[in-house]
Amino acid sequence: MTAAPALLDALRQTVGAAHVLTEGDLTAWEQDWRRREHGRALAVVRPASTAEVAAVVRACAASGTPIVPQGGNTGLSVGSTPDASGTAIVLSLARLNRVRGIDVGNLTMTVEAGCILQTLQQTAAEAGFLFPLSLAAEGSCTIGGNLATNAGGTQVVRYGNTRELCLGLEVVTAQGEVWDGLSGLRKDNTGYDLRNLLIGSEGTLGIITAATLKLFPQPVAKLTAWAAVPSMEAAVQLLGLAHRHLGAGLTGFEVMGRFALSLVVRHMPQLRVPFADLEGAPWCVLLENSDSESEQHARERFEHLMELAFEDGCVLDAVVAESIAQARELWHVRESIPLAQAEEGLNIKHDISVAASRFPAFVAHTDALLAREVPGARLVTFGHLGDGNLHYNVQAPEGGDAAAFLREQEPRVNELVYDAVAQFGGSFSAEHGVGRLKAHTLAHYKSPVALSMMRAVKQALDPQGILNPGCVLLK
Amino acid sequence: MTAAPALLDALRQTVGAAHVLTEGDLTAWEQDWRRREHGRALAVVRPASTAEVAAVVRACAASGTPIVPQGGNTGLSVGSTPDASGTAIVLSLARLNRVRGIDVGNLTMTVEAGCILQTLQQTAAEAGFLFPLSLAAEGSCTIGGNLATNAGGTQVVRYGNTRELCLGLEVVTAQGEVWDGLSGLRKDNTGYDLRNLLIGSEGTLGIITAATLKLFPQPVAKLTAWAAVPSMEAAVQLLGLAHRHLGAGLTGFEVMGRFALSLVVRHMPQLRVPFADLEGAPWCVLLENSDSESEQHARERFEHLMELAFEDGCVLDAVVAESIAQARELWHVRESIPLAQAEEGLNIKHDISVAASRFPAFVAHTDALLAREVPGARLVTFGHLGDGNLHYNVQAPEGGDAAAFLREQEPRVNELVYDAVAQFGGSFSAEHGVGRLKAHTLAHYKSPVALSMMRAVKQALDPQGILNPGCVLLK
Repeated sequence: MTAAPALLDALRQTVGAAHVLTEGDLTAWEQDWRRREHGRALAVVRPASTAEVAAVVRACAASGTPIVPQGGNTGLSVGSTPDASGTAIVLSLARLNRVRGIDVGNLTMTVEAGCILQTLQQTAAEAGFLFPLSLAAEGSCTIGGNLATNAGGTQVVRYGNTRELCLGLEVVTAQGEVWDGLSGLRKDNTGYDLRNLLIGSEGTLGIITAATLKLFPQPVAKLTAWAAVPSMEAAVQLLGLAHRHLGAGLTGFEVMGRFALSLVVRHMPQLRVPFADLEGAPWCVLLENSDSESEQHARERFEHLMELAFEDGCVLDAVVAESIAQARELWHVRESIPLAQAEEGLNIKHDISVAASRFPAFVAHTDALLAREVPGARLVTFGHLGDGNLHYNVQAPEGGDAAAFLREQEPRVNELVYDAVAQFGGSFSAEHGVGRLKAHTLAHYKSPVALSMMRAVKQALDPQGILNPGCVLLK
Repeated sequence: MTAAPALLDALRQTVGAAHVLTEGDLTAWEQDWRRREHGRALAVVRPASTAEVAAVVRACAASGTPIVPQGGNTGLSVGSTPDASGTAIVLSLARLNRVRGIDVGNLTMTVEAGCILQTLQQTAAEAGFLFPLSLAAEGSCTIGGNLATNAGGTQVVRYGNTRELCLGLEVVTAQGEVWDGLSGLRKDNTGYDLRNLLIGSEGTLGIITAATLKLFPQPVAKLTAWAAVPSMEAAVQLLGLAHRHLGAGLTGFEVMGRFALSLVVRHMPQLRVPFADLEGAPWCVLLENSDSESEQHARERFEHLMELAFEDGCVLDAVVAESIAQARELWHVRESIPLAQAEEGLNIKHDISVAASRFPAFVAHTDALLAREVPGARLVTFGHLGDGNLHYNVQAPEGGDAAAFLREQEPRVNELVYDAVAQFGGSFSAEHGVGRLKAHTLAHYKSPVALSMMRAVKQALDPQGILNPGCVLLK
């Protein structure tokens, strides 16, 4: 064990003294996005290249110093900030922010981990292509963090999670070696799938420094519709119809509960929420149709779908946006739900998934359970029904002491919801990952056989346990 | 170490004496598909359930007996047959052949490892859906083998490899425990991606006993076109146009070299090969367009694409099939190349990938290299250009002694081709996997860092080394 001062000297020599931060306000690196925890770092280290990352890891390995890799620090599960011990360094990838290249003929781009997601969307668009990953934090999250957490977002129904958008990785191992697994290959069956093992491992098995990502042709037209549906069953039925009649054109399918929308009406009176008061419509659905042909074609397909849905009785009323501005407004309503919810007060958030076909039964069961067990709790239910992913959030009772509600009820509400999720074969973390926040939840709900395989893999790749300890797997 | 007789007794008690084969002709299990190796098994064991598989593995683990898992035994890399030592059992998954369920609302089906691929295609079709995995051996290969080798095939450009079609696995570990990772979830970020680690691990990390697979809506129409192109550059340009104008409708994009097609003309005179003699057209391309709308719409889109391609000069002539029968004929020509090649005589097969954009330079470089270094060798080049996957096969010189050519030249030809592939950032095994056949090739070409991570993972999950030893990683 090297003493901390010797390590800090070594790090300063590696990345330059200006990029080893130990003084002043380090809140931006030490506190998680949702401000649930404020830890303390031995230092914030900001290497500028893969070679520097590797050297930093070797120095930490030599001294047994824990490393917390960090991208934009926008994660929702406390996976990229240090604990309170002050023994770990935060390794920020922010300075690795070059686009290394775009291969137009291969529909790929190779980028460094610290690139901001929105920058990559723009880079792709300027080259005439689409990089479809899209999520609320896109203005500040980094692609390295997206990969480390296998981020989801709004386009998953068509393009998959971040995992599905990545063809190759460059990774610094726990030993400080560089694995150059960058590759634009769509087929490569030469050995174990290390790429996918690293993706979603939240910095606990290696540090992603660069990636080769898939690009897609830009759709010629993108249309958005908003439909009021009589039940969750009808929403699932509409999803099936949309798959059948839009094919791969279906790029978005979001569901929103009536109470969630009522919060938008209450707190954002300037927004127009279609069908917010329509009788017999407990849910609304937002659909997006991307077309490789023309706007007119997209509109015809959408109108055909809606006609069929009316006939089948799974849609009560629907509107197709007439302009890009109108489409943006509809998406804006959907995206305003979390903010409206925050305006309403504190709440308990869940990021769960179940099979789309089991959504109706899951919601009926769990709504009733909470109504019985947690009287007054209000359910803010919305999410990516197309991927089976719900944000099933629980708002404190109207007019009550929300802080007290959270303090007293959060563990119990989580247990009720996660038990129900498990009962319906679902996941307690669909897209937000585990981090340190849900490491106990993982230990409780994950199959013991899977946990034991995960621990064996962790031990194999990081025998010293220096990579993001306590994240995903408990220490 | 239990003596073999005690183990065999235990296995007979577990699966029934009728399903522990030790006598008679075991060639079907002991010899690989391409008849490159005929090994010897201690026994062929045919459990009927996951519990029986687990019990067999526990018995083998207790006695340190190697296990070679086997599906349809149609692999091309000698990954599912035993070596000559007679110490390993072949564990056939063939009797685990139930479709456990179809979830129409979730677009998934859960099936056992021994299900024949074609049966699953039919099962999906009968429920009104598409299971898109399609490859030459589909009449006898099993989904377990497809998953264990991450099989590719002809629809990868749209639907991905087997990996992309799987949402969850049931696996028996090297310790004989059952990991129930069956899941129809499209989003689940609860820990390491064990599913993808197992997929493509060729039975060396665990034994896949069941899987939950994605279903897709059946396309309403499927059209096939055949285009003569002036160069490989033009073929890649056409691929870009097809991506842009057909979007996700592009479900097939195969390239065939002139010599490959001439072998079909020579050996299958009953087949009509379009543009086989067209001047200035060294390559032909087969395109498939799947449409969720109508045949007329598919045809209009195809014709629009071809007009643009003519204007751009990347297509010299093209024909769109007028009927399903004609489309089948075109596919039949493409699929007849391997057989025509076999009729022509012995040859050296390669299953390689490079980035689509580097195909022209790769082919120019490697063709010239082989012409110089292996005079008279004839190149049978064809494959899935849409995925960057070529079967770059080398036929013995016209009229020469093909057997002698193979004996004398195969190692050298492989070295030339694989060195060139490495130089162009490609893979020496795009879709056929490593098996025991290419374990030495993997050891030579794979990055040492990746190999060391792979060995660590293998040691972690199978510390006794009983699962398919010598496959993928050298013993």
